[in-house]
Amino acid sequence: MDQKEYMELAISLARSTQGQTSPNPVVGAVVVNNGEVVGMGAHLRAGEAHAEVNAINQAGSRAKGADIYVTLEPCSHYGKTPPCADLIIEKGLKRVVVASTDPNPLVAGKGIDKLMKAGIEVETGICEEEALRLNEHFFHYIQTGTPFVTLKAAVTLDGKTASYTGDSKWITSSQSRLDVHNDRHRHDAILVGINTILQDDPLLTTRLPQGGKNPIRIILDTHLKIPFESQVITDLSAKTVIICGSQYKLNQKQRLESVGVEVIPLSSSTISVIEVLKILGERNVTSLYVEGGSTIHSSFLKEKAFQKLIMYVAPKLVGGIKAISAFAGDGFSTIAEATSLEFQSVDKIGSDLKIVATPKHEGG
Amino acid sequence: MDQKEYMELAISLARSTQGQTSPNPVVGAVVVNNGEVVGMGAHLRAGEAHAEVNAINQAGSRAKGADIYVTLEPCSHYGKTPPCADLIIEKGLKRVVVASTDPNPLVAGKGIDKLMKAGIEVETGICEEEALRLNEHFFHYIQTGTPFVTLKAAVTLDGKTASYTGDSKWITSSQSRLDVHNDRHRHDAILVGINTILQDDPLLTTRLPQGGKNPIRIILDTHLKIPFESQVITDLSAKTVIICGSQYKLNQKQRLESVGVEVIPLSSSTISVIEVLKILGERNVTSLYVEGGSTIHSSFLKEKAFQKLIMYVAPKLVGGIKAISAFAGDGFSTIAEATSLEFQSVDKIGSDLKIVATPKHEGG
Repeated sequence: MDQKEYMELAISLARSTQGQTSPNPVVGAVVVNNGEVVGMGAHLRAGEAHAEVNAINQAGSRAKGADIYVTLEPCSHYGKTPPCADLIIEKGLKRVVVASTDPNPLVAGKGIDKLMKAGIEVETGICEEEALRLNEHFFHYIQTGTPFVTLKAAVTLDGKTASYTGDSKWITSSQSRLDVHNDRHRHDAILVGINTILQDDPLLTTRLPQGGKNPIRIILDTHLKIPFESQVITDLSAKTVIICGSQYKLNQKQRLESVGVEVIPLSSSTISVIEVLKILGERNVTSLYVEGGSTIHSSFLKEKAFQKLIMYVAPKLVGGIKAISAFAGDGFSTIAEATSLEFQSVDKIGSDLKIVATPKHEGG
Repeated sequence: MDQKEYMELAISLARSTQGQTSPNPVVGAVVVNNGEVVGMGAHLRAGEAHAEVNAINQAGSRAKGADIYVTLEPCSHYGKTPPCADLIIEKGLKRVVVASTDPNPLVAGKGIDKLMKAGIEVETGICEEEALRLNEHFFHYIQTGTPFVTLKAAVTLDGKTASYTGDSKWITSSQSRLDVHNDRHRHDAILVGINTILQDDPLLTTRLPQGGKNPIRIILDTHLKIPFESQVITDLSAKTVIICGSQYKLNQKQRLESVGVEVIPLSSSTISVIEVLKILGERNVTSLYVEGGSTIHSSFLKEKAFQKLIMYVAPKLVGGIKAISAFAGDGFSTIAEATSLEFQSVDKIGSDLKIVATPKHEGG
């Protein structure tokens, strides 16, 4: 195995923990002594040991004189656990290979400096792009204080999320829907508008064969119109937060709170997506998965408040001048004003296409 | 070079003549004698020599004892030129390798029979799928008597062909637009509805750096509303045919005819896509490129009267509940009723995606 392969293994370890480490990043580490893999680990949960600690502990005495491959720069500060840079020095490792440096401008480079000052060889930049992508949620959050926003829609090839009658079951294949559940697991919170609740009464939980973490359910509901029998209220397997405008009925709020739902009124009568993101950021929500509907999507589009768009495109044509598209609202008046994206990937998933695009606007 | 490589060369020769042989298929041929390529040719234009004739003539005396690779079964009947099977026998070729047999049920297999009866070795099926795709227009036409219909649309990633104000310039990149001109060149006719003429006043010609063939311009215009100053009328570089309903103004028809436009009234007051295809088939139109707008597209969708759909998807989001989608009309009332497609290919073209899909309905 070469350097790149060791780092790819470390990245695989990190990737396997996506969804379980928030608000911390995912990190993987591999310890190699004289060409033998002697320890491997990942950061499994916030508050628990860092990846380097797990891998070095596993290596035991063979950590001495070894190389460690780690997907993120080792920390140099005391948090819930002691600094990993100190452990690496203490255990006598010879060389540290780092995929990406810490994105937090306050600590970036400090771990590497500490190691180098202790005479340890440090190499950076191996598989950097992959490592950055792996923690795109965390890196965005740490730099902006607001969650990384992914908009998701499932459409027919003619761009419709529902027929003119509102029927939408099922546009995409079971494989695409499974992929959505994987993405729910990887996000801290999921967001829909009140219309989606009224039309589809979704559960908005992660339902994977192997289990999975439920994101917090965020419902944007300006006037607290949500029916008490909605599944997001009666189902207690995930936390539900309703964000409303300033003109809400107090008894409705109290009744919702009495059944365990958190209600957050905003200061203005309409809901500002920017304010929502700020509030969620303050509550350590590092990633937000926006499942629509089209009015909600268009609010995020209008504010250019998203970092990724995932479109599942089914091989179907439904047609209809009144059929619903993924983005509603007013829209831009000309094509020149339209938000520019960049296609990141296109994959076949079941019989569908999964198109991932990122906006070109700042912060994208 | 092996068998497959010789046949791929023959297919390349055939492909290079797409757009110039209608109503005949494209055909390529390569003559190989003792491992040396000694002749190559394609059918260049209807009425001119077949591919085999060009390739065998080029081979001269070295055709004797040679193998010929031909993309379509050699003909056995007298048309505008004598049967190719006879020439192959006469010139003493040893072996004939055929990619696809003739799709015309009346002649299928007869050329091969004739060759085999003359003691010539015949092999079929090499690169068959590619050869069939190469002549999909011709094969469909010969079997149905109606043109192969390709629907084309250029959309934003949220499925819009124009913003809510009707602005559509330009959704896709210049590379995608060039690709459209290549497809115009490869089709016998191009079709749009009167609304496209009124909104965009397009020229509907093939404009490629290296030149190209202009398809016949077909305009569906129920009430002959087309303005006389429209480019498709004032520009004489391509033939224009207007199809209208039975309730047209005679003087309007006569005036259009006086400037060289052909007007075809249908027997009913509204335009039936099925009747249009029948009429075009009778006029030897083997392929039809439908450029919209969305009402026209939805008519073809409703009648399931298309064989291919090409969507150019630009990395843009325009939004807007009133923005225009690729298919209008009523549409299907449920997703279960939607027309099922199969994705054939997805390619990056400039900054756009080109998605090609075929319908699963019969005749697709």
